[in-house]
Amino acid sequence: MKLVRFGEVNAEAPGILDADGNIRDLSGVVDDIAGDALSDEVLAKIAALDLSSLPVVQGDPRIGACVGNVGKFVCVGLNYSDHAAEAGMPVPKEPVIFMKATSAICGPNDGIEIPRGSVTTDWEVELGVVIGKHAKYVSEEDALTYVAGYCVVNDVSERDSQLHRSGQWVKGKSADTFGPIGPWLVTREEVEDPQNLSLYLEVNGHRYQDGSTKTMVFGVAQVISHLSQFMSLQPGDVISTGTPSGVGMGQKPQVYLKPGDKIELGVEGLGVQKQVTYAAG
Amino acid sequence: MKLVRFGEVNAEAPGILDADGNIRDLSGVVDDIAGDALSDEVLAKIAALDLSSLPVVQGDPRIGACVGNVGKFVCVGLNYSDHAAEAGMPVPKEPVIFMKATSAICGPNDGIEIPRGSVTTDWEVELGVVIGKHAKYVSEEDALTYVAGYCVVNDVSERDSQLHRSGQWVKGKSADTFGPIGPWLVTREEVEDPQNLSLYLEVNGHRYQDGSTKTMVFGVAQVISHLSQFMSLQPGDVISTGTPSGVGMGQKPQVYLKPGDKIELGVEGLGVQKQVTYAAG
Repeated sequence: MKLVRFGEVNAEAPGILDADGNIRDLSGVVDDIAGDALSDEVLAKIAALDLSSLPVVQGDPRIGACVGNVGKFVCVGLNYSDHAAEAGMPVPKEPVIFMKATSAICGPNDGIEIPRGSVTTDWEVELGVVIGKHAKYVSEEDALTYVAGYCVVNDVSERDSQLHRSGQWVKGKSADTFGPIGPWLVTREEVEDPQNLSLYLEVNGHRYQDGSTKTMVFGVAQVISHLSQFMSLQPGDVISTGTPSGVGMGQKPQVYLKPGDKIELGVEGLGVQKQVTYAAG
Repeated sequence: MKLVRFGEVNAEAPGILDADGNIRDLSGVVDDIAGDALSDEVLAKIAALDLSSLPVVQGDPRIGACVGNVGKFVCVGLNYSDHAAEAGMPVPKEPVIFMKATSAICGPNDGIEIPRGSVTTDWEVELGVVIGKHAKYVSEEDALTYVAGYCVVNDVSERDSQLHRSGQWVKGKSADTFGPIGPWLVTREEVEDPQNLSLYLEVNGHRYQDGSTKTMVFGVAQVISHLSQFMSLQPGDVISTGTPSGVGMGQKPQVYLKPGDKIELGVEGLGVQKQVTYAAG
């Protein structure tokens, strides 16, 4: 299933794509694509619906973040060896974990803000994992059963703030609009192998990133199991699993985003995001 | 005002302390001590109430975290020079910012879990700041007007996970129960000077931390202004402003928490927390 949230910011309604690509309104079934609605039980109930019985959403509504009320937005750093190399950092022995502020979350096609004074705002296409049930001390073997589904994430990053402003990366990862997620939450049964998905990112039509989740250092199951040793995970938490090579910081010379740039990114089977950048007010 | 949340986990009701130290039930006035209820307008409305008209809460209910639905739990690292020295780290040139998982939040007197396998779980008494209105690119001058109030925080920390498990500190800061906040949210008009509050922490009756917010490297106004350059802050976000010297890691020899230890900590005017540690199941 491809679940979607549509409508204005902070007033998104839940929907589902039908076979023709129309959004069908799920408001009568769940309040939101969030929290308990991500459980296996509720997802099975949605899967059993006759979609033709649900109202087709008219017009061309804004698409919101594909998950509402995200409790934690956890990211894995340097999780593709080619990206670690271009960042000039060693491949880590265990997953490097950092947080993005949940206030950075936005819709997949919303504008992306260049923070005041920033000349090093960068892109990172990533496979996002949406947690479906409470996870604590889970094994790698069981880890994927805690996944509700997958989505595209652009882990937008301000490199100066991330790397040169006193240590911890969160400062460069958390500006408003730095976390577009969606367009869809693709439920896990539609993703045969999360470690075999191509992913790409283009800026102004030039393809900078072109990779595959095959080359992740720590796969999705490892990441979930590892994380769950350090914190509990709740339904609606989002884990972004790292980016392959081709970020702006890795270009020679380096290339960074400026207002008016057009970004397009996608992950195989999970849809496409399109963003235009603008200067923060 | 001293606002409080009482009742079972995830079912806390809002309350307020009266002059006799009784909890009065605020359920008829606000849904929760959270989000929009932290605005100047709603706080003024609560301040105007005749508390004797509100029902006294009977019995001895559990006290919950003093803020509900926290969106971000942001911490400042190494923000007292004596603590930086005992941690063997330089005093930072700008605030070091990291996140704790919001799922770590618990009530001020709830038990604290020692994570599986941990032999380096440590304490940190801190002044917590609760945001009352949306803050982005705010000046130091205006920063304190964005504060709803203050509270006690124990920034419980697993040092091995924080420092030796691939870089970012969040891994050692985020276990369940690692973020007791409260007992009260003391609204800002009751705190004349947040930079002149004594704070202490004892384990099994021995006083390990005994400091004052006077010796913070970056004061509350600086921290809020600085943070707001990197991310927006929302009502209900909690900022924990760092700990003075006297953590377990700084003892010679080092001292860490083991199951059954009794912790007591407080900040002047903001109340006291009492916790007993236990081994994670």
